[in-house]
Amino acid sequence: MAQAQKITPRAQDFSEWYNDVIMQAELADYSPVRGCMVIRPTGYRIWELMQRALDDMIKAEGHQNAYFPLFIPQSFLAKEAEHVEGFAKEVAIVTHTRLKATGKIGAGAVTPDPESALEEPLVVRPTSETIIYAMFAKWIQSYRDLPLLLNQWCNVVRWERRTRLFLRTTEFLWQEGHTAHADEADAEREARLILGMYRKFAEQWLAMPVITGMKTESEKFAGALRTYAIEALMQDRKALQAGTSHNLGQNFAKAFNVQYQTATGGQEYVWNTSWGVTTRLIGALIMTHSDDFGFVCPPRLAPTQVVIVPIWKSDEERGQVLAVGERIRTELHTAGVRVVLDARDTVKPGAKYFEWEARGVPLRLEIGPRDVAAGQAMAARRLGGKGPVSLAELARVVARTLDEVQAAMLAAALERREAASVRGVTKPEFLEFMRTGGGFAYGGFCGDAACEVAIKEATAATIRVLPDDEFRSREAPQTCMWCGKPSLVEAVWAQAY
Amino acid sequence: MAQAQKITPRAQDFSEWYNDVIMQAELADYSPVRGCMVIRPTGYRIWELMQRALDDMIKAEGHQNAYFPLFIPQSFLAKEAEHVEGFAKEVAIVTHTRLKATGKIGAGAVTPDPESALEEPLVVRPTSETIIYAMFAKWIQSYRDLPLLLNQWCNVVRWERRTRLFLRTTEFLWQEGHTAHADEADAEREARLILGMYRKFAEQWLAMPVITGMKTESEKFAGALRTYAIEALMQDRKALQAGTSHNLGQNFAKAFNVQYQTATGGQEYVWNTSWGVTTRLIGALIMTHSDDFGFVCPPRLAPTQVVIVPIWKSDEERGQVLAVGERIRTELHTAGVRVVLDARDTVKPGAKYFEWEARGVPLRLEIGPRDVAAGQAMAARRLGGKGPVSLAELARVVARTLDEVQAAMLAAALERREAASVRGVTKPEFLEFMRTGGGFAYGGFCGDAACEVAIKEATAATIRVLPDDEFRSREAPQTCMWCGKPSLVEAVWAQAY
Repeated sequence: MAQAQKITPRAQDFSEWYNDVIMQAELADYSPVRGCMVIRPTGYRIWELMQRALDDMIKAEGHQNAYFPLFIPQSFLAKEAEHVEGFAKEVAIVTHTRLKATGKIGAGAVTPDPESALEEPLVVRPTSETIIYAMFAKWIQSYRDLPLLLNQWCNVVRWERRTRLFLRTTEFLWQEGHTAHADEADAEREARLILGMYRKFAEQWLAMPVITGMKTESEKFAGALRTYAIEALMQDRKALQAGTSHNLGQNFAKAFNVQYQTATGGQEYVWNTSWGVTTRLIGALIMTHSDDFGFVCPPRLAPTQVVIVPIWKSDEERGQVLAVGERIRTELHTAGVRVVLDARDTVKPGAKYFEWEARGVPLRLEIGPRDVAAGQAMAARRLGGKGPVSLAELARVVARTLDEVQAAMLAAALERREAASVRGVTKPEFLEFMRTGGGFAYGGFCGDAACEVAIKEATAATIRVLPDDEFRSREAPQTCMWCGKPSLVEAVWAQAY
Repeated sequence: MAQAQKITPRAQDFSEWYNDVIMQAELADYSPVRGCMVIRPTGYRIWELMQRALDDMIKAEGHQNAYFPLFIPQSFLAKEAEHVEGFAKEVAIVTHTRLKATGKIGAGAVTPDPESALEEPLVVRPTSETIIYAMFAKWIQSYRDLPLLLNQWCNVVRWERRTRLFLRTTEFLWQEGHTAHADEADAEREARLILGMYRKFAEQWLAMPVITGMKTESEKFAGALRTYAIEALMQDRKALQAGTSHNLGQNFAKAFNVQYQTATGGQEYVWNTSWGVTTRLIGALIMTHSDDFGFVCPPRLAPTQVVIVPIWKSDEERGQVLAVGERIRTELHTAGVRVVLDARDTVKPGAKYFEWEARGVPLRLEIGPRDVAAGQAMAARRLGGKGPVSLAELARVVARTLDEVQAAMLAAALERREAASVRGVTKPEFLEFMRTGGGFAYGGFCGDAACEVAIKEATAATIRVLPDDEFRSREAPQTCMWCGKPSLVEAVWAQAY
């Protein structure tokens, strides 16, 4: 474990703070490969816990996991016009298959062997619509084969110019769902079902409130008919797109000739959906909850939920508190709690507190000789609050406390979001709002892309979503907050990651 | 589900049989990308079950999962001389990061943009020693940081000339463990621990017996000090390397300058190990157990362990048997059994039997009106044996049966292997054995690589391992079975995949 170091306060530099939190908690590290990160064990464990939870939800709705190739022939990408337009500028392209020695020493010792050039270069998947729907064309014959509901957990690569740990990396991990349906209604139902699932996952596991809705034409996925998204607000009042679900219409079905025979013997193109969440969610988690002491992790995703710190002066005390600590550790572990006993001799209790706080552990149990005598432990919550707990009731109290912390984190994040939201904005209010910190601004929108462009130029804010019913303002706006023309629909603007 | 088709008998063409089994069971499919396969839901589910089991074993020994970049700067590969020698001829190399339109239509519509050429080409990881140990150099400072025990689940790419579904594909999935230790003894202990873990995993989960031992110099991993392997024998009497564990010595530590401060203040290079098993294990599973009716899957790895097939003639009977079928399904599901009720109206029971046999489901429960009246189901094992089971005892009997099947499969595979093994061979016996089917041939070995080469040329057989104590013949061979010089060690030869 690295020596704890000072974390830049959020108020001073949010971006520096974010990196400090990641480094202190050892969630990730920079790699020697431009734009690619290393996900360290603590960060990866969070991803595993996310995967387990979301995978269960995906499977419960009838989807099965499969695995498709990393490489896509470059010509496949070009088959759907908008799709290639969207991804052509950011793909890693494999052109050769052998290295040969140059005779030089050091960095230039090997080079791609020109004789190994591929006839058709391969693209490292930036997303897998094209390769997956090429297979769908082979597998789908009749309406009996529909719906086809698949999901894939994998790595993808998008050659980003500016990268940030977790938020935007050249390679990232994600799940991508891909489905085929007999008609538009069924595809739309699926895209909506997944959006609801993502929302539930964000709220129940990440303790992160999100608003759901549709993207405008300018923000939708390259090749989609409609894109839905969950959007969260970070502590710096910037929005983060945390998951997307696309109704792809028949665009890819037509590009890859995915047809099925209907019950009455006709031939129809299928309707596709695709949807995904990525390791970016770990960035979202960090920026939603963490503080100037470091990482704060909701209990359900915490690699370590409880740390036990024994306190002693003499060897005799050491024996006592360690024995009780080990007994508690075993008891909590048996009860299904992810618990660590920090028995290190070389680090003082105060330094241990500091370290485990920076690592985001939700609950600390301190056990000193007086606690042992009193049959208790001191329970200190990562987010504040400390008091004695009887050892006889420990497992029950710990379980309840973790549940309380999880719920309180969601409530606090929701409160922060609402405090950073403004409804029914006028243009001057909007400009002022975006100039003084920003957040979610709800207002009328005429539907004209020109307004979106002008707003983005003036404030850097974009429409995050056209919010779903549940998130709309009680009074529907009458006019576009920017141009004053009649409002077609309410929109939510924010500056975004 | 595809229409069941005839499977080529093993005796007629083992290779065709293998492909037929995979296609019928829908485990995998060919993709449009040369050498890359698609792992279909049933095949991927087996991989998930393998992952879950092995991951638990890996973590139980103190390893943590992490994730490292897909891309490796080409110069990194060249830092360890043997390593680059071993992999240079089979790596996918990324050289560009943008596609541009050519103005043409169809396959040639896009091409790598020359202006996006990378300064240093990147290799798609064929294995991750180089990128991981570059990070180890950053993370390891002192003896307190050791041992460092990491594991990664990911995809890797090796540009193979001849590919076979699961057995040898350009891209494959695997886990790769990477550890650093303070001294040789600790690294050796780790490499050995993992070898034992792989053996246990193969036996207990795949029901696949393996022999363990060390590889000779000519067969060891590129860059390793010593390579250990588990080797299994397939039904065509060919050996399959099913997992490897390497003591890498200080080779990579020196290439990447991974040093630590000792307790006494000195500087030492660490000792590394690396070890992996791949999706090839699914191929091993198929070739160890399957038969001319299709896939046979050990219960612990079967995506579906039990299929319930209701039998009816009238609508009234249909209602009865489906009601009981659903009740049983729920009961078994609740008991933790992976169970499917095949209630399809459009397929006759006999055809269903045929399909589920080809899919490798270990146990079928048939329920007709007479069974309902008698309060029983007919239980038919995939590998033979059929009889009534009282519904009152069903969950218990099913659990016991699945355990029995699992154990019987290991025993049968072990028997097949031993029947195809010969010990204490002389040269003429060896030549005859390899000419008439082959298998594991145990014999004396002088230790000279020249003998290995000559044997391979004459018979295509290679030394699979220098077997561990437990697998050695009771009487140590005195002379090299090939050249007649004194035997240095016993070896096991086989023709291999």
